Amino acid sequence: VALTREDAAALDARDPLAGFRDAFVIDDPGLLYLDGNSLGRLPVATRERLVAMTGDWGSSLVSGWPGWIDFPRRAGDAIAPVIGAGPGEVLACDSVTVNLFKLAGAAHRDGAIVCQVDAFPTDRYVLEGLVAARGAELRLVDGLSGLDGAGLVVWSHVDYRTGELADLPAITAACRDAGVPLVWDLSHSAGAVPVGLNAAGAEFAVGCTYKYLNAGPGAPGYLYVAAGALRDLRSPIQGWFGQAEQFAMERPYQPAAGIERFLAGTPPILGLAAAEEGARLVNAAGIEAIRAKSLAQTALLIDLADAWLAPLGFTVATPREDGRRGSHVALRHPDAWRITRALVERARVIPDFRPPDVVRLGIAPLYTRFTDVHDALARLRDLVAAGGHESYDLAPGRVT
Amino acid sequence: VALTREDAAALDARDPLAGFRDAFVIDDPGLLYLDGNSLGRLPVATRERLVAMTGDWGSSLVSGWPGWIDFPRRAGDAIAPVIGAGPGEVLACDSVTVNLFKLAGAAHRDGAIVCQVDAFPTDRYVLEGLVAARGAELRLVDGLSGLDGAGLVVWSHVDYRTGELADLPAITAACRDAGVPLVWDLSHSAGAVPVGLNAAGAEFAVGCTYKYLNAGPGAPGYLYVAAGALRDLRSPIQGWFGQAEQFAMERPYQPAAGIERFLAGTPPILGLAAAEEGARLVNAAGIEAIRAKSLAQTALLIDLADAWLAPLGFTVATPREDGRRGSHVALRHPDAWRITRALVERARVIPDFRPPDVVRLGIAPLYTRFTDVHDALARLRDLVAAGGHESYDLAPGRVT
Repeated sequence: VALTREDAAALDARDPLAGFRDAFVIDDPGLLYLDGNSLGRLPVATRERLVAMTGDWGSSLVSGWPGWIDFPRRAGDAIAPVIGAGPGEVLACDSVTVNLFKLAGAAHRDGAIVCQVDAFPTDRYVLEGLVAARGAELRLVDGLSGLDGAGLVVWSHVDYRTGELADLPAITAACRDAGVPLVWDLSHSAGAVPVGLNAAGAEFAVGCTYKYLNAGPGAPGYLYVAAGALRDLRSPIQGWFGQAEQFAMERPYQPAAGIERFLAGTPPILGLAAAEEGARLVNAAGIEAIRAKSLAQTALLIDLADAWLAPLGFTVATPREDGRRGSHVALRHPDAWRITRALVERARVIPDFRPPDVVRLGIAPLYTRFTDVHDALARLRDLVAAGGHESYDLAPGRVT
Repeated sequence: VALTREDAAALDARDPLAGFRDAFVIDDPGLLYLDGNSLGRLPVATRERLVAMTGDWGSSLVSGWPGWIDFPRRAGDAIAPVIGAGPGEVLACDSVTVNLFKLAGAAHRDGAIVCQVDAFPTDRYVLEGLVAARGAELRLVDGLSGLDGAGLVVWSHVDYRTGELADLPAITAACRDAGVPLVWDLSHSAGAVPVGLNAAGAEFAVGCTYKYLNAGPGAPGYLYVAAGALRDLRSPIQGWFGQAEQFAMERPYQPAAGIERFLAGTPPILGLAAAEEGARLVNAAGIEAIRAKSLAQTALLIDLADAWLAPLGFTVATPREDGRRGSHVALRHPDAWRITRALVERARVIPDFRPPDVVRLGIAPLYTRFTDVHDALARLRDLVAAGGHESYDLAPGRVT
């Protein structure tokens, strides 16, 4: 295990993905950014693409639409290899929340909706609304068991707090065996962890592009429907971009034959261009290579936490087995909130805080260096050892 | 009436809004763009703002969120004066389609949903889906009468094909008297026609920003809820941005006290910045001044059509009374489709086509000149008189 800075630098020197760091805008190398799992960095290519797309709007005007209209599908096809899907099975559009509403609404059959009690809140909120409208029950569970009477399962691939990685093939098989539709939420895994949707026989998924896909604040989400799972599914939000013949405009709504039926309104062209660029970078590096680096870096992070932070009252809340963790590590500490504030303001390390007591450190292998992990943990150790967080307010406030 | 080019040039010379044309990127002055009612031009300030926002993402990273999180409200507050609403009554987010789904779903009471038979298709599609889910009836009507048994009315302020302007105060009063909630669709009026929502006592509206608000392809829509109309309304799409305490993250969903309850997922920051810039330009010019110029230009357009195009088989489908038309003019012609194609390709005039037989010409007073109107109609006249459209295919295809 590499616990010295020299060891970390040696790992950087032989990192096959090291060159990808140059693909990102990094204005301030002294800032250690370990929150790419919340908002990814700006790729250089995306900065250029956004300028070009803005120019395209200005010069092509409405005549640009024939070139833009397939952007949800184009961006979706770029995302597909990241999550183990095929062409035509992924559509980038709307937000994760709206996509989950559409897909859960379409896939849900009579019966209870089952979801992790620790799912990201927006997932639970969407499902609360759905069961209220349909007179169904929402079952919030710790683990997947007892699918009797269930009409839908929604499951997160990586837990947004602990970083625990769910066993996607096993859960997919269990739901299939029970005959219950299953929607995966890939927001906290896609781009850092191979997902393998097709290989597992998964039918439905949603995810976001502003974390490990580096598409920018509020960039569109995506949804996945396996080719064989489209059947007669209908989106509860019927819009003109989901209509079979969009520009006929006259007849009653008839859903498009393919996944486009899950489009609703006019798609956000700039955000979709950014999503496509972000996915391209992930594909250029290769999701397996990204995963290998992510595991090495989270392992280093955990080792350093054990060595340096455990004596300061931290515990590692993330599973230690490679096969059971995603790409971020949760450190529990009773003073997590003010430690997070102090880290940002005094130590120039960007983690994030998740209530009630988690300092979350994310690895984005396309631009995180082994020395970044080493240095961030050293700064955290020194800060807390010196009591640098103790002058901060105890009350939690807003952190995204 | 000004029918010579000199007359049109004289109108431009004394146009108080003439200077606003310089606020837009216009690469090709020879192209006559009369489709700002479909996709508005790129403002210079927006081009700069998008570059700045991209840079802000790159350098602020996740720490940018405290500055971005209020963008839906900020952009909404910028749009508010355009449509006669107050601060805190407008939220920019999602697409028009999704906003209509949320607002119609929230405002609908037991009973039929009433909508214009000629409403923009996505409105009808959304409502078809809503009534199917709720076991209600969708009544598609020509004019508003017979609100017995109605649980919601959705009405377009300006008809997307004919350009007819609805009597917003009268229809609002009729629905209020009948006790039926009413959602206005302002997509084809806002930014070109004063709307006066508060003055009319209107409770609900949705609209788009990529037409007369010049926010770019697929920029977010907006929704309006009068301050007194929020009551216990709940969005059918419950998401974390609509939650009372977004970052508490733990308890069951509780809608925000204000209009933010109609947010769902993470909002698109670049698109919201563009929407704010676009609304600012409209406010700088003043919606009343914009309306005066729009009426003068559509009157000129109709006069020229009467003089030059009627002999060629065109009829004006737009009402001639000032108080009954919006900011675009519909010319009916049996060959509308191929005339539209020929106009674009041979005459460098950009209109759009709406099935089955409409050539639609839009006035965007912030950048359309009187000479543009004159020249476009002259080119149209000369093209059709010479049979320049006759070599084009008769079959209608895709035009946005």
